[in-house]
Amino acid sequence: MAKVLSGAGLRGQVAGKTALSTVGKSGSGLTYRGYDVKDLAEKCEFEEVAFLILKGHLPNQTELNDYKAKLKGLRGLPQALKDVLERIPADAHPMDVLRTGCSMLGNLEMETEFEQQQSVTDRMLACFPSIICYWYRFSHDNVRINVETDDDSIGGHFLHMLRGEVPNELHVKVMHVSLILYAEHEFNASTFTARVCASTLSDMHSCITGAIGSLRGPLHGGANEAAMEMIEGFTSADHAEEEMMGKLARKEKIMGFGHAIYSESDPRNEIIKQWSEKLAADVGDTVLYPVSVRCEEVMWREKKLFCNADFFHASAYNFMQIPTKLFTPIFVMSRLTGWAAHVMEQRADNRIIRPSAEYIGEDLRPVPAIEERG
Amino acid sequence: MAKVLSGAGLRGQVAGKTALSTVGKSGSGLTYRGYDVKDLAEKCEFEEVAFLILKGHLPNQTELNDYKAKLKGLRGLPQALKDVLERIPADAHPMDVLRTGCSMLGNLEMETEFEQQQSVTDRMLACFPSIICYWYRFSHDNVRINVETDDDSIGGHFLHMLRGEVPNELHVKVMHVSLILYAEHEFNASTFTARVCASTLSDMHSCITGAIGSLRGPLHGGANEAAMEMIEGFTSADHAEEEMMGKLARKEKIMGFGHAIYSESDPRNEIIKQWSEKLAADVGDTVLYPVSVRCEEVMWREKKLFCNADFFHASAYNFMQIPTKLFTPIFVMSRLTGWAAHVMEQRADNRIIRPSAEYIGEDLRPVPAIEERG
Repeated sequence: MAKVLSGAGLRGQVAGKTALSTVGKSGSGLTYRGYDVKDLAEKCEFEEVAFLILKGHLPNQTELNDYKAKLKGLRGLPQALKDVLERIPADAHPMDVLRTGCSMLGNLEMETEFEQQQSVTDRMLACFPSIICYWYRFSHDNVRINVETDDDSIGGHFLHMLRGEVPNELHVKVMHVSLILYAEHEFNASTFTARVCASTLSDMHSCITGAIGSLRGPLHGGANEAAMEMIEGFTSADHAEEEMMGKLARKEKIMGFGHAIYSESDPRNEIIKQWSEKLAADVGDTVLYPVSVRCEEVMWREKKLFCNADFFHASAYNFMQIPTKLFTPIFVMSRLTGWAAHVMEQRADNRIIRPSAEYIGEDLRPVPAIEERG
Repeated sequence: MAKVLSGAGLRGQVAGKTALSTVGKSGSGLTYRGYDVKDLAEKCEFEEVAFLILKGHLPNQTELNDYKAKLKGLRGLPQALKDVLERIPADAHPMDVLRTGCSMLGNLEMETEFEQQQSVTDRMLACFPSIICYWYRFSHDNVRINVETDDDSIGGHFLHMLRGEVPNELHVKVMHVSLILYAEHEFNASTFTARVCASTLSDMHSCITGAIGSLRGPLHGGANEAAMEMIEGFTSADHAEEEMMGKLARKEKIMGFGHAIYSESDPRNEIIKQWSEKLAADVGDTVLYPVSVRCEEVMWREKKLFCNADFFHASAYNFMQIPTKLFTPIFVMSRLTGWAAHVMEQRADNRIIRPSAEYIGEDLRPVPAIEERG
């Protein structure tokens, strides 16, 4: 007989094994393959962390150089994929663009054997920024950009294509930090989607396409976009406090605070917060950062709710002139590493994920003739 | 603390509630909303069953006429989608074509509110056959077909576009039966993928795109294709028996037999088997049907394994001149009803599906400087 689980949404139920990360083991920690995310964000480039997550160890200098050179060579887009992106309208959802771009790539560069899983993942890591920027610039600015730039990093490549100029060192550094913070997070809904798909032994493009579709949901990705939409309406810290108190009184949902797993704090917040502060100083901001800090103070004072990874990402991305609707696609560029590593882990010790359901429907009944139906 | 589940792959674990179907409640039964699938396959058209699964009750004649008229009006493809399909090569995986077509449709006709869930589903039901046939005929025969035919049914529309002529009544009837048999099957891996995606409150196109990617996996869809590839190599019933005995002796995997949930028989087999027999008589077949029957006899005699829904689908589809690689896309055209109904059911009583994992990786360790790495 099927066992009835206590929590809805499989909450707290172990659905498999992983060596990739721990989330909130001490109530607040996040580790990738045993390394604390704070330690990684301080000392590493995103490409080192992607290598770590995908291949199991931190690269030495030679390995890192080789990996970055490899990724750099994989930024180009096939003409057929560009043709597809040019046919997606400017008002499409950017996550739908990435979902479609990834799926189309699977038609053109199919993973036919699992031995190709690392190379198809590297290809996606290198060209997802190209996909999103090519579509964005074509549909919004009517230009066909060159996606094969010489930038050293994935984050730099993205900013360069998006803004049409080589980004400064601070911005490149913040992109490294941001991509590291979002890279992996255990069995969240998008990763679990990828693993369910992988458990049928489907191809990598199907798994990642499915995961993008799940991250698109407002209960999963998109909180940093919602946070941005809120804070950009506040003209000062005092105005933010006034508005926040009103929202709390009206019991409106406020995005960017609290977390399903973390109980005391989100370890990623203090990291991105300090970089948001540095960016604010760099651009001479006197509104958005103080507004964000005040929101954090009010939510803690009134509700004992802490900022999660998304809240200070909103101001940080905004200071780098990233359009709000591209925030969640950056999440994809990063989390792709975790998704792909989970697919590889699922494949290495697979059983198809096929749970049961509790039936709450009609009892057996005969099919009435059509003329006897009400 | 997280509870460790006994079975891998969540087998036998209740992951949610459904009113849509029961699978193997008595060891062999399959019901959709309380109606036995045999009863439905005998008395109904596929559009009646799609209506039942999606809207909760069997339509009366007026409702059925209206629904079929509505679907008939939704067969056309936007030019941008045709452009995309024309850029997918002939050697692409047809499931990747459908996955991409569905995703692209989401860019062009986005579900922006859940109130649109029935209409976007109807649109997909009506145009998925158009998507697969438009791509197939363009890439294989170099023709741009008219997808807006006047056929009465989804199955007839599909056969008409595929073969370029109006199908006879027997073929239309078999398509009804086949689409009914594959329409819904509880929390299988592709449906569960759709529900995980839906639990983030993502859009219908994301949920269905993800489900297609999961059905693509060889452990899920595709068994009828594998069965076809095997039986078309047998020249007679005796030859089939000889080859099957050899495969069994070599412990080779034989597709189309047994089932993860059904223990005694698959209720869908006897239905499609009788229609395969009728088609064999109609086309004057003296090989494929007798070969299939002998395979069934050998597997039961030697292994006590029964034919599942897929085995006699292989010969039935072949008798209707459907290319083997389009077998699984037909599965999509049908199962779309179950997937969409599960998405609607998940949305109506949602909690994000976010299980936990058992951690089997490295303990906490410091990040070494890059020059100290091996």
